[in-house]
Amino acid sequence: MEMDLNAQEKKEGFFQRLKDFPSKLKDGVTKRIKNVQKFGKDDPRRIIHSMKVGVALTLVSLLYYVRPLYISFGVSGMWAILTVVVVFEFTVGGTLSKGLNRGFATLTAGALGVGAVHLARFFGHQGEPIILGILVFSLGAAATFSRFFPRIKQRYDYGALIFILTFSMVAVSGYRTDEILVMAYQRLSTILIGGTICILVSIFVCPVWAGEDLHKMIANNINKLANYLEAFEGEYFPLSEKISKETNSCVREYKSILASKGTEDTLANLARWEPGHGRFRLRHPWKKYLKIAGLVRQCAFHFEILNGYVLSNYKAPEEFQSKIQEPIATMSREAGEALKAIAKSIKTMSKDTASVNAHIDNSKKAIENLRIALKSSYPETEKDLLEIIPGVTMASILIEVVNCVEKISGAVEEFSSLAHFKETLDPKLPVEIGQHQLLHRGSVKPVLDGDNEEEDNSSPHVLITVHDEQPPTTTGKNSLGAEKN
Amino acid sequence: MEMDLNAQEKKEGFFQRLKDFPSKLKDGVTKRIKNVQKFGKDDPRRIIHSMKVGVALTLVSLLYYVRPLYISFGVSGMWAILTVVVVFEFTVGGTLSKGLNRGFATLTAGALGVGAVHLARFFGHQGEPIILGILVFSLGAAATFSRFFPRIKQRYDYGALIFILTFSMVAVSGYRTDEILVMAYQRLSTILIGGTICILVSIFVCPVWAGEDLHKMIANNINKLANYLEAFEGEYFPLSEKISKETNSCVREYKSILASKGTEDTLANLARWEPGHGRFRLRHPWKKYLKIAGLVRQCAFHFEILNGYVLSNYKAPEEFQSKIQEPIATMSREAGEALKAIAKSIKTMSKDTASVNAHIDNSKKAIENLRIALKSSYPETEKDLLEIIPGVTMASILIEVVNCVEKISGAVEEFSSLAHFKETLDPKLPVEIGQHQLLHRGSVKPVLDGDNEEEDNSSPHVLITVHDEQPPTTTGKNSLGAEKN
Repeated sequence: MEMDLNAQEKKEGFFQRLKDFPSKLKDGVTKRIKNVQKFGKDDPRRIIHSMKVGVALTLVSLLYYVRPLYISFGVSGMWAILTVVVVFEFTVGGTLSKGLNRGFATLTAGALGVGAVHLARFFGHQGEPIILGILVFSLGAAATFSRFFPRIKQRYDYGALIFILTFSMVAVSGYRTDEILVMAYQRLSTILIGGTICILVSIFVCPVWAGEDLHKMIANNINKLANYLEAFEGEYFPLSEKISKETNSCVREYKSILASKGTEDTLANLARWEPGHGRFRLRHPWKKYLKIAGLVRQCAFHFEILNGYVLSNYKAPEEFQSKIQEPIATMSREAGEALKAIAKSIKTMSKDTASVNAHIDNSKKAIENLRIALKSSYPETEKDLLEIIPGVTMASILIEVVNCVEKISGAVEEFSSLAHFKETLDPKLPVEIGQHQLLHRGSVKPVLDGDNEEEDNSSPHVLITVHDEQPPTTTGKNSLGAEKN
Repeated sequence: MEMDLNAQEKKEGFFQRLKDFPSKLKDGVTKRIKNVQKFGKDDPRRIIHSMKVGVALTLVSLLYYVRPLYISFGVSGMWAILTVVVVFEFTVGGTLSKGLNRGFATLTAGALGVGAVHLARFFGHQGEPIILGILVFSLGAAATFSRFFPRIKQRYDYGALIFILTFSMVAVSGYRTDEILVMAYQRLSTILIGGTICILVSIFVCPVWAGEDLHKMIANNINKLANYLEAFEGEYFPLSEKISKETNSCVREYKSILASKGTEDTLANLARWEPGHGRFRLRHPWKKYLKIAGLVRQCAFHFEILNGYVLSNYKAPEEFQSKIQEPIATMSREAGEALKAIAKSIKTMSKDTASVNAHIDNSKKAIENLRIALKSSYPETEKDLLEIIPGVTMASILIEVVNCVEKISGAVEEFSSLAHFKETLDPKLPVEIGQHQLLHRGSVKPVLDGDNEEEDNSSPHVLITVHDEQPPTTTGKNSLGAEKN
């Protein structure tokens, strides 16, 4: 009986562990699965891309599965599989760049390889491997060296790699086979089949355009700058701490811009391989995006320095702070609004110079007000000058930020002509927003041009901001301002 | 006769063009050749690398040229060629990472592929391609998806690619051949041969270590910061314009740091694949370099903003400028010296905390002097405050730079313990330099710790800087300063 009990206990312990094991495993696995799901949901195009690769692989497998195809291509079909795996990239530009590079490199290197084999045969069976060896060494080394040149590295790196590969393979295996032309033909044709399948699937099944990604990325980056500027008052001035906590999550988004140069360069490079698509023509000025991106990054550098003053515990005395708060807040808010308008103009590919310039002008007027505020708060004692230095520095950098915003606006305006932006607002927007825009356009200019003595920058501005996501709430401030004039 | 003359003229014209052609061609070609030569000279390792690839290709060609080898491997030898071309990278880390990824991925995917073929055969000749298709689709899609995960992308991207490739090829071609095991064996063994040749040539013929490159890059970047700071006085204060022109070429070198994150990340990533080499052990803290690099970049951001004030035509009034010039100059010079010492300490992998701290302390003292100078120059009229704002901002950012330098120094000190830096100076240096260093060490501390009333920051400092390239010239300033105490 005891043994029976022991055995039962053991059995129960075992069952207990068996019972615990699934829950432990489940915890680990569900965590992983949730991570993967979240990752897929973040950008569903990743899942679609994986499916597309699967489809291309299945299509290319038919070269083996279907008897007539297998009879004509034989084992060379594996070159098609290899091509699909290495050529299929996430973006259309990437696939096209790799596919075309591979195709042309295989063609030229194959031809050269066949030539090299025929040349080497003149030197007899003894001399042949020596000549081939010398040719493979020298062409291989030269092509490898060429890959270091930035121009080649940027656009034809993969082509140079495939050139070395194909030339070496054709030249070396030519020594052992007499059917070198058949081999080269089969290799080339299967690579063409694989490459074509990749390019077709990439373009016609849910395409991911590098150009469009670049376009959206630049607009989003400008929006990130705008978010920082709009939250700046809440971040810097401790009185309005409430805002600070609400917006904190998206405020530091600008940091991603600091290191985004690599991605932008790659996207611009790939975009140039893409045919015209959607709103982008064949010769869309992709390089110009990099100019805008450079200015955007310059602005982000300024934020990075500003951030030091925002997070610093040591700030200027409250009296001084309260004097500069109003102009500083207006400056950053208006500069942010200008950036929002620029980002929207890029997103909708329609010019909106009037609104952008109005915001920038408001921001500049706030700079003047800031100067007045600084004048009226000049230090009374020696110590005061030292105390207000952080505040003065912050203000000074913020003025530079406004200059940056103006430069971005200039670059985008130049770009908008090259990229054939529409002159009016996007017609897809609801009609009433278009009307607000007209109202705004008709009424802002007189205020800005005329020397309205009653107007200072702390008074409400005659500006209606049209947001992408939601219809503008015609607050009392805006509509009153518009009606006043 | 006329015809003869005409013919002669034509002949002469032809010869003239023939004469001109070589000179034109020569101009173009010599220009190109000079470019290529310059490019090779800039980093001779590029030429060596190209030769190494040639050597590896020649070695691997022997699988075809040597009859006994060809008999045992047959056409599979081309996988070895392919492996050499795609696996051979510039750095040892790159080659090892690709080689190991390729090896392991081929092994696992090959085994899975053979398994898949055997499984599919249970379903009869009709069902086989369907099962194989489903398996290839799902594994291909899953592996493609996995390549999006940052962790896998960073270290195992190539492995995932080769996994898809090998699995698809083995599974699909298994449908048509019964010698699948022989095929898999030959493929695996030739890939191992190719990979091994790559790794051996890469490690034993003039190796390029990613780790060493990273190490040097960080030290050089710190030097670039130091160059900017040391030239800052000449750049900012128009009086000493002479210095400005002399140093202009290397002053803006810091700009390369702004976008160097990608390169640093890649190098750190590859360095982790490398075995211990030279002064670096196997588990060298490569990741810590990225922390230092981040702080260095933060400092470069500050320079980028400072630069705006340096290049601006609008500067503070001369009277104010001359008051702050001395402390500003000392601040930047001493911070620069500190960075030089840090860079040297990294280069020689020996601790030099005393010298670095001494320079940083001097720099901080200069900040105090700057505060005093600012106090004594507080604005007399309202307008003055506005006028001195650019100067104040510049000074304020420079103070932040000194903070940055201190942070870099702290990070390097932490790193130096982890990386087992030597406690003393590099013994390879000439003896007399070591003595100067001792002299310096013995004499600096009392000056810094004691409250020497005679000392202010405009007086010569008791610091001997030991340069890497040339023996220190014991100028009157240094030796006098050292003897004084």
